[in-house]
Amino acid sequence: VFTPGASVSEETRKKVLKAASSLGYRPNALARSLIAGRSRIIGVLVSYLSNQFYPEVLETLSQRLQALGFHLLLFIVDEENSADPLLQQAMDYQVDGLIMASVSLSSKLAAEAVAAGIPVVMFNRTSDISEASSVTGENFAGSACIASFFVAAGHKKIALIAGQENTSTNRDRESGFRTRLGQLGVTLARREVGAYSFTQAAEAARRLFGEGERPDAIFCANDHMAIAAIEVARNEFGLDVPGDVSIAGFDDIGPARWPSYAITSFQQPIDRMVDACISILLGSVIDNSPVVRHIVVPGELIVRASARVPPGTTEKDEQKIWRDSVKMPEMASGPARGKAKKER
Amino acid sequence: VFTPGASVSEETRKKVLKAASSLGYRPNALARSLIAGRSRIIGVLVSYLSNQFYPEVLETLSQRLQALGFHLLLFIVDEENSADPLLQQAMDYQVDGLIMASVSLSSKLAAEAVAAGIPVVMFNRTSDISEASSVTGENFAGSACIASFFVAAGHKKIALIAGQENTSTNRDRESGFRTRLGQLGVTLARREVGAYSFTQAAEAARRLFGEGERPDAIFCANDHMAIAAIEVARNEFGLDVPGDVSIAGFDDIGPARWPSYAITSFQQPIDRMVDACISILLGSVIDNSPVVRHIVVPGELIVRASARVPPGTTEKDEQKIWRDSVKMPEMASGPARGKAKKER
Repeated sequence: VFTPGASVSEETRKKVLKAASSLGYRPNALARSLIAGRSRIIGVLVSYLSNQFYPEVLETLSQRLQALGFHLLLFIVDEENSADPLLQQAMDYQVDGLIMASVSLSSKLAAEAVAAGIPVVMFNRTSDISEASSVTGENFAGSACIASFFVAAGHKKIALIAGQENTSTNRDRESGFRTRLGQLGVTLARREVGAYSFTQAAEAARRLFGEGERPDAIFCANDHMAIAAIEVARNEFGLDVPGDVSIAGFDDIGPARWPSYAITSFQQPIDRMVDACISILLGSVIDNSPVVRHIVVPGELIVRASARVPPGTTEKDEQKIWRDSVKMPEMASGPARGKAKKER
Repeated sequence: VFTPGASVSEETRKKVLKAASSLGYRPNALARSLIAGRSRIIGVLVSYLSNQFYPEVLETLSQRLQALGFHLLLFIVDEENSADPLLQQAMDYQVDGLIMASVSLSSKLAAEAVAAGIPVVMFNRTSDISEASSVTGENFAGSACIASFFVAAGHKKIALIAGQENTSTNRDRESGFRTRLGQLGVTLARREVGAYSFTQAAEAARRLFGEGERPDAIFCANDHMAIAAIEVARNEFGLDVPGDVSIAGFDDIGPARWPSYAITSFQQPIDRMVDACISILLGSVIDNSPVVRHIVVPGELIVRASARVPPGTTEKDEQKIWRDSVKMPEMASGPARGKAKKER
């Protein structure tokens, strides 16, 4: 009766449950984990919860894992500190797998996880570490698409507000954006760093609008920073968005759809990214041999009102989208450097 | 070396850790939990992650628990379904305590938790169940303060967008707002239900602006709904906020501070609420006897630009606040009905 998936009649089940309840019996999941060598716990390390992308990821992840009978042990990683001690603690609980969302993995800990037979999936990050799987959006191709979108709309003075500089997402987004601008014969006019922080992105926007030549289009490496840039443009510099400056973002989070922002953003489809993550993890758990996979989940450029719109938009799933005539291959630098095959 | 708080010299610690690492030894937290009868896991059930209040709570809670050597097993509760099956699962992991944030507790499960010696703290909710502790903000007094604020600013046609109707927070906020309006001789002109949902709050605002006599002030039972109401007022009805309509909220979440919204909101201080929650839980865990406590954490009405400002604002912690001349006692209806003493 207490073993998930075991065969028992409904009548027997009810009798046993009633008896158990009257005796105060409770199956001890910990004791069972020790016997089965499987805790049905997935350790999740996450950072940046103020960026609405991650609560959405956490919600979806938790619901899918719950439906499969797994549970989620949550670790919040401070942006300044190493995740290693927390990862150690997660492994002490004999987790069946580890998901690292917006958190970097050290090669030392990756090796320890592999030695302990614990599969590791990086979510929205990649790493050079060959033991860890990854699930990402189209960071390179999506950012390249935004470059084309700006150029097609006639923008000439294009700027970038970069994310946290040591992250794979920022490296790939910046590189996709710059590569495509270069192909189109446009130079990136200005660059500031917002480090994926609301406050730092607002500071970056203040520099772009208050000093030097003002850009007419800004790509923010995520929507959370794009909100900060729009606020500064409107409320501190009296600029019209997109009349005076076009602003685009990345992720397509909930607030990007709020009419005050209506952010043109390259989408990261959370549902499909979470599905990919779980399929890697559970594949490894069931086969009992971690298989390293790198999955890139494709997205679309969702067109809203925060950036000037060039010709060529189409409709998909009741949303306005824009596709580049040239589709850039997703050439993320991390695990794609010939080491591992990329799936889509 | 592997027992938290045990006395061991730094030199010995290093030697043992080195030996353990070379042997691939890892302390098994599950086995240790069985022996110690304590898992150092706190089960957290939460709902409504799209309301930024809860990710902020989760982040603070997780960081505080981590610092104390506890870990957080996360359960996301679907708004439509009962939390009982998830609560059962949490108890199966022999959690040391349970926190229920924005989730209702059935008396059956509360009794089971008590029988199992597991302390339960309701966070941002109260219940009539005598076994569960609670931590809330000043739902009654804070909402009463917003009523006074509207009346002091000269508003006559005052409306309410209520939250989820079967929750203690909504009951207390609505009752505080109505009670104070009544004392001031003002009738609540209109009432709609937004059920703490962005979409439903937008629908409620459409009814308030599109049908019948338009209110000149709206109290939304949380900030998440206030954002929806502001969006509808401006973008669908071309109304100026607060020129045509004042809008106030509750919680003081991050987005309430974004200049586009600048929501006048009664604050729920997450840091102090989390501290109160942890002190109840760990007090019970350490004493090994659950003590039921009800803590109300006081807040302030933070004055921003979304509502017309009456005279009498002051400054506190670099924020503009407003205090009512009459301070209503916090008279939440749940556990306060003479059953348990309320602490502040």
